[in-house]
Amino acid sequence: MSGKYLVTGGAGYVGSVVAQHLLEAGHEVTVLDNLSTGFREGVPAGAAFVEGDIRDAAKWLDASYDAVLHFAAFSQVGESVVKPEKYWDNNVGGTMALLAAMREAGVRTLVFSSTAATYGEPETTPIVESAPTSPTNPYGASKLAVDHMITGEAAAHGLAAVSLRYFNVAGAYGTCGERHDPESHLIPLVLQVAQGRRDAISVYGDDYPTPDGTCVRDYIHVADLADAHLLAVAAARPGEHLICNLGNGNGFSVREVIETVRRVTGHPVPEVAAPRRAGDPAILVASAATARERLGWNPSRADLAGIVADAWEFAQNITREQ
Amino acid sequence: MSGKYLVTGGAGYVGSVVAQHLLEAGHEVTVLDNLSTGFREGVPAGAAFVEGDIRDAAKWLDASYDAVLHFAAFSQVGESVVKPEKYWDNNVGGTMALLAAMREAGVRTLVFSSTAATYGEPETTPIVESAPTSPTNPYGASKLAVDHMITGEAAAHGLAAVSLRYFNVAGAYGTCGERHDPESHLIPLVLQVAQGRRDAISVYGDDYPTPDGTCVRDYIHVADLADAHLLAVAAARPGEHLICNLGNGNGFSVREVIETVRRVTGHPVPEVAAPRRAGDPAILVASAATARERLGWNPSRADLAGIVADAWEFAQNITREQ
Repeated sequence: MSGKYLVTGGAGYVGSVVAQHLLEAGHEVTVLDNLSTGFREGVPAGAAFVEGDIRDAAKWLDASYDAVLHFAAFSQVGESVVKPEKYWDNNVGGTMALLAAMREAGVRTLVFSSTAATYGEPETTPIVESAPTSPTNPYGASKLAVDHMITGEAAAHGLAAVSLRYFNVAGAYGTCGERHDPESHLIPLVLQVAQGRRDAISVYGDDYPTPDGTCVRDYIHVADLADAHLLAVAAARPGEHLICNLGNGNGFSVREVIETVRRVTGHPVPEVAAPRRAGDPAILVASAATARERLGWNPSRADLAGIVADAWEFAQNITREQ
Repeated sequence: MSGKYLVTGGAGYVGSVVAQHLLEAGHEVTVLDNLSTGFREGVPAGAAFVEGDIRDAAKWLDASYDAVLHFAAFSQVGESVVKPEKYWDNNVGGTMALLAAMREAGVRTLVFSSTAATYGEPETTPIVESAPTSPTNPYGASKLAVDHMITGEAAAHGLAAVSLRYFNVAGAYGTCGERHDPESHLIPLVLQVAQGRRDAISVYGDDYPTPDGTCVRDYIHVADLADAHLLAVAAARPGEHLICNLGNGNGFSVREVIETVRRVTGHPVPEVAAPRRAGDPAILVASAATARERLGWNPSRADLAGIVADAWEFAQNITREQ
């Protein structure tokens, strides 16, 4: 059965891939994005596009929408440390306004783009959803505040809600891929080195208690992530706020990522040793048991070489366009 | 050295007692309160009074203020469950505006009225500040969000900040005492029964794993609490967000409170057994070690009979006035 969905932040990396998946599944999609960090050309063909802020959603959101998939947010950890007020104002204040608009319009299903950063430095691994939440930066704190806000909204007003806590999203899908300005994510950075656009990749710490001494993260293909969002819309139940981690449950080290990029691209990737960064836990790996059980999610693109190959193709395409 | 302080919510219970203590210590005090739950007559004589919202603080806050003591908030747990958006909008949105006004005005010291409700149901007792924070209602979640916001503000912008996480505040000071509408706190409720204004006190659960089967809470005299705020202003350090629990470290059970009220007032207090309430942990007792070490705080009114006697005097006075 086809539906009508609002995708906030649908000009961004994950939002645009999810919008594309919704369209491919035969749904009607409106993308709302203020283009403050998204790209107009990232909005998939076939989606209606509204250039605007989530605070203004009340102006046109109406009961014809079946659900909102909410990605609009600032998401740069480093920036959030320097300008926390920007994150509280936009991510938290913006979502307050969006929830009010949804109540007003009678749209009662929400899938929210949350993050592993809500957990902070984990005490045990893999991370389950009942783990303590102790974010180490304002970005993670703002996303945790929104998760708490949604919990209250579901209990009080019957919202059907799912928060998906992403681990390290990577890869690309069609014309939609990962690019940040400034780039801060490992795989795109390593690919820029392989392209010769950057001299070397910094390895922040090689004496962590991990097999090769570098940090271990759980990389998940953005198309697998998108699948989970469509399943979440279907799994959402009125009055319940379901929280699911999204990861593969397997970790790859920084050194394994670099090695995989060398193998996939055939280019040299010089490394530079750098000191550990504050707030970088040794291992961040998801338990995806809840997503598998409650959403029926079954990620099929867990192979790191495949993730890197898709990201490489996207990186080569956008470089050619520039 | 005398200072100039803004007390937001200074027409409320704790805010008014702190304002009174600041005045007695020779400081200049401005109370800002929108009187949505506070009482105009609660503002201590000698304090300047501005009837207004914290969102409008930017209109007149200036560098002549040495610090802000921030109490303004909605604080009814039950209401927060039914109207969570009211708590996010006022407590979180309001504090965003207040922090912006403080940045603008160059007022760089803040003492924030936080709560034990940020912890939720504790895994260990007594509760230390590093315990997991897992609030069980929107009131606690909104206060936790503000604590996280303040942490970011201190790190990014050098705010000197102390959050004080209150356990069960009780007692009265001068003409300032505890009254909520509707009343929801144990000691005032039991006193209303002693006054004959209420038929009986409900005891929610008598099969908890506690010595007498009823819930144990950490009651702290509001004047001891006020002392901690003055010490916190002095202890605040630029760029640091210090979080301190405020409690006596001793618990008293519901039944001990009722028995103490009978003894102190000489009136009968009928009890009615009622089922447990959701989200009521068996024991909530603070470790006040951080407050003792970092603030030099030494509560001197920990005796339950004394707390109840002061609350009783206040209750008799306001009843006579009505």
